[in-house]
Amino acid sequence: MSGVSRRKLLGLGAAGVAAAGASVAGARMLLDEPAPMPVSAVSALDSVAFYGEHQAGIATPAQDRLHFAAFDVITTKRSELDALLQEWTAAAARMTQGQEAGTFGAVGGVPEAPPDDTGEALGLPASGLTLTIGFGASLFDGRFGLAGRKPAALRELPRFPGDALLPELSGGDLCVQACANDPQVAVHAIRNLARIGFGRVSARYSQLGFGRTSSTSRTQATPRNLMGFKDGTANLKLEDTAMLRDHLWVAEKDGPAWMRGGTYLVTRKIRMHIETWDRTSLAEQEAIFGRDKGEGAPLGLAKEFDEPDFAKKGPDGAPLIGEVAHVRLAHPSSNGGARLLRRGYNYVDGSDGLGRLDAGLFFMSYQRDPHRQFVPVQRALAKNDVLNEYIKHISSGLFAIPPGVRDGGDYWGRALFA
Amino acid sequence: MSGVSRRKLLGLGAAGVAAAGASVAGARMLLDEPAPMPVSAVSALDSVAFYGEHQAGIATPAQDRLHFAAFDVITTKRSELDALLQEWTAAAARMTQGQEAGTFGAVGGVPEAPPDDTGEALGLPASGLTLTIGFGASLFDGRFGLAGRKPAALRELPRFPGDALLPELSGGDLCVQACANDPQVAVHAIRNLARIGFGRVSARYSQLGFGRTSSTSRTQATPRNLMGFKDGTANLKLEDTAMLRDHLWVAEKDGPAWMRGGTYLVTRKIRMHIETWDRTSLAEQEAIFGRDKGEGAPLGLAKEFDEPDFAKKGPDGAPLIGEVAHVRLAHPSSNGGARLLRRGYNYVDGSDGLGRLDAGLFFMSYQRDPHRQFVPVQRALAKNDVLNEYIKHISSGLFAIPPGVRDGGDYWGRALFA
Repeated sequence: MSGVSRRKLLGLGAAGVAAAGASVAGARMLLDEPAPMPVSAVSALDSVAFYGEHQAGIATPAQDRLHFAAFDVITTKRSELDALLQEWTAAAARMTQGQEAGTFGAVGGVPEAPPDDTGEALGLPASGLTLTIGFGASLFDGRFGLAGRKPAALRELPRFPGDALLPELSGGDLCVQACANDPQVAVHAIRNLARIGFGRVSARYSQLGFGRTSSTSRTQATPRNLMGFKDGTANLKLEDTAMLRDHLWVAEKDGPAWMRGGTYLVTRKIRMHIETWDRTSLAEQEAIFGRDKGEGAPLGLAKEFDEPDFAKKGPDGAPLIGEVAHVRLAHPSSNGGARLLRRGYNYVDGSDGLGRLDAGLFFMSYQRDPHRQFVPVQRALAKNDVLNEYIKHISSGLFAIPPGVRDGGDYWGRALFA
Repeated sequence: MSGVSRRKLLGLGAAGVAAAGASVAGARMLLDEPAPMPVSAVSALDSVAFYGEHQAGIATPAQDRLHFAAFDVITTKRSELDALLQEWTAAAARMTQGQEAGTFGAVGGVPEAPPDDTGEALGLPASGLTLTIGFGASLFDGRFGLAGRKPAALRELPRFPGDALLPELSGGDLCVQACANDPQVAVHAIRNLARIGFGRVSARYSQLGFGRTSSTSRTQATPRNLMGFKDGTANLKLEDTAMLRDHLWVAEKDGPAWMRGGTYLVTRKIRMHIETWDRTSLAEQEAIFGRDKGEGAPLGLAKEFDEPDFAKKGPDGAPLIGEVAHVRLAHPSSNGGARLLRRGYNYVDGSDGLGRLDAGLFFMSYQRDPHRQFVPVQRALAKNDVLNEYIKHISSGLFAIPPGVRDGGDYWGRALFA
């Protein structure tokens, strides 16, 4: 099965696969009843290019599902870590194109050996899978001779008021963000990277998410978070290349050289007390967000994308958008122009044993400098946001996201290890 | 927003909505770029009828996502429980048709009151949502005067060898299975039922699942479980109405009368040691299942749906399908003809803190009599199945699934409380 893409197993050509809007369950139905479908350039079934100046999965239209994993490196040998990153890159290049993780496939190769793909994604299309790697501060602690190459921007985040961080769900030497439109495809990818890394890395924590809570493209509608509000209206969008240059991608002058074209990822697992939220009045919910719940318009305005008018006052003389409304606190004008590319997901981890859903937001933001962008925004929110009564930050991560892999000879982190 | 379906919010008519294969991310894309699409009778976006002889979500083509919840009843008043079931039925009838949980909608009604829908599914189509209720044995313990109405088939399951059941993840007075092609829609439904039940029920445990691991219709391809094998090839299918009559639906003679047209649900959360499995050779994996991994054919045969030939021997004189191969142990011919309608889902609950994915199968099977169908199959598997080295049953549930709601005047369990 060497080199055979899952797409080809389906008997589908590269161009004619996708209906506008066809998706995952769609893929499954395709398996059952192949039918002529209209052609679309980008569909939820298609593959996303792996090679490029930047890693995919950042300024890529946000897929609908997440499997995020943080790993501890357990080998102490730099050469083994370096080799692992090369193997991971090769597997990622294959899996993102709808192929199996290994060149022999799950079902070919040697019966006496374990399969080099676990097989549960056989027959499924690429489903927009992207795999994005990051390096945590602890990777630069001296074990691998990388201490001198640690970016200044990777220094520890400050403690924010109200933080209730669980160490076992925070940090990590490496992280991999798998996003796809089918959770089975995202889970398959993380699992096979963990399998390949056996004996060299160990999964520290991982998180499934659904219902992307931000749009990263103007072609996407703004989705709703588990508080029922549209979220991330003011997000950086991939079409705004000048904004991405200024706020997202690391420039040469930012240093170090190996990070040029990269970015930084902040993760925060934010538990929501949704049962309490659900007993709050609509008026209070809208005042807390500073937007109306249905349309998502800033209070006092009509449309979601209307620019908030923070000066506008109601009949009582008070600002329609309160001084501590979420939309005001998080707005670039309140934070020295700081902007983020948010790429978070809703999560539900079952129930908490106390009769409540264990649910919330796995927040992820990409930015050029977390200390100048994420930190001031989060500081303002942690100090003043009335939402804090309904949420709790329980994990935190900060990762340097290296630039993209240029071609088949390049690999994740090559410039770091060079 | 009274009576407005989410579908209508999208500006989509009832008939012309769905592409063959269009799905969830598809729904989101529709929001962004409405485009003419081919018509299909059943799509992943459509609604499933709520009223009928049987509850939906059983002999319904298996959707791709699950949110299952078990509840403890915390009120001791029969009238409050009866009222809750009426309120739940009304909300379920609405939500399964793509409407909000309450008649005032999330964003209409009274600003001073909490919204009567939590809002996170606003703008999403029905997505095939089904809501299926069940009653656990503990509901008949005397608190509600129901002891005399407990079905004999609801008696406790025996303990099986190797069971490692966690009481806090087992049992429950009530259960609701929410299946949909969008997890946000399934989560929204369970959450709003929990919200409506505040003060009367408390969530005992809940479970998200993805990648249906069985087909319940001949129009569906057989999906793969997290061991990478096709699962549920021999499942009961909705097209086989005579088989469903014999093996699925409770008949009048089975008693009690209120269960006629109902069925019984067994749930088992089965943790898989996937890292160990992934280091097992392909030949060993295939011997354990008794099927080949790629096609899913019984060993010695060519095609998935070929009937296993348990007598066929290899060159060494031993049966090609071993005496303890999973396919042999689970086959009706080994279990007095017992058949199940399986409707389970893969799950990944993150990592386990020991470097392993916390993953497996949330097994669900529907059958006319669990003690004559599920029990003999599970007894054979628990005793002999080599798979037991790779799995652990950590939760168990048994629920009486009442018949369908006939019309707007009927409700879940009316015949039980009458």
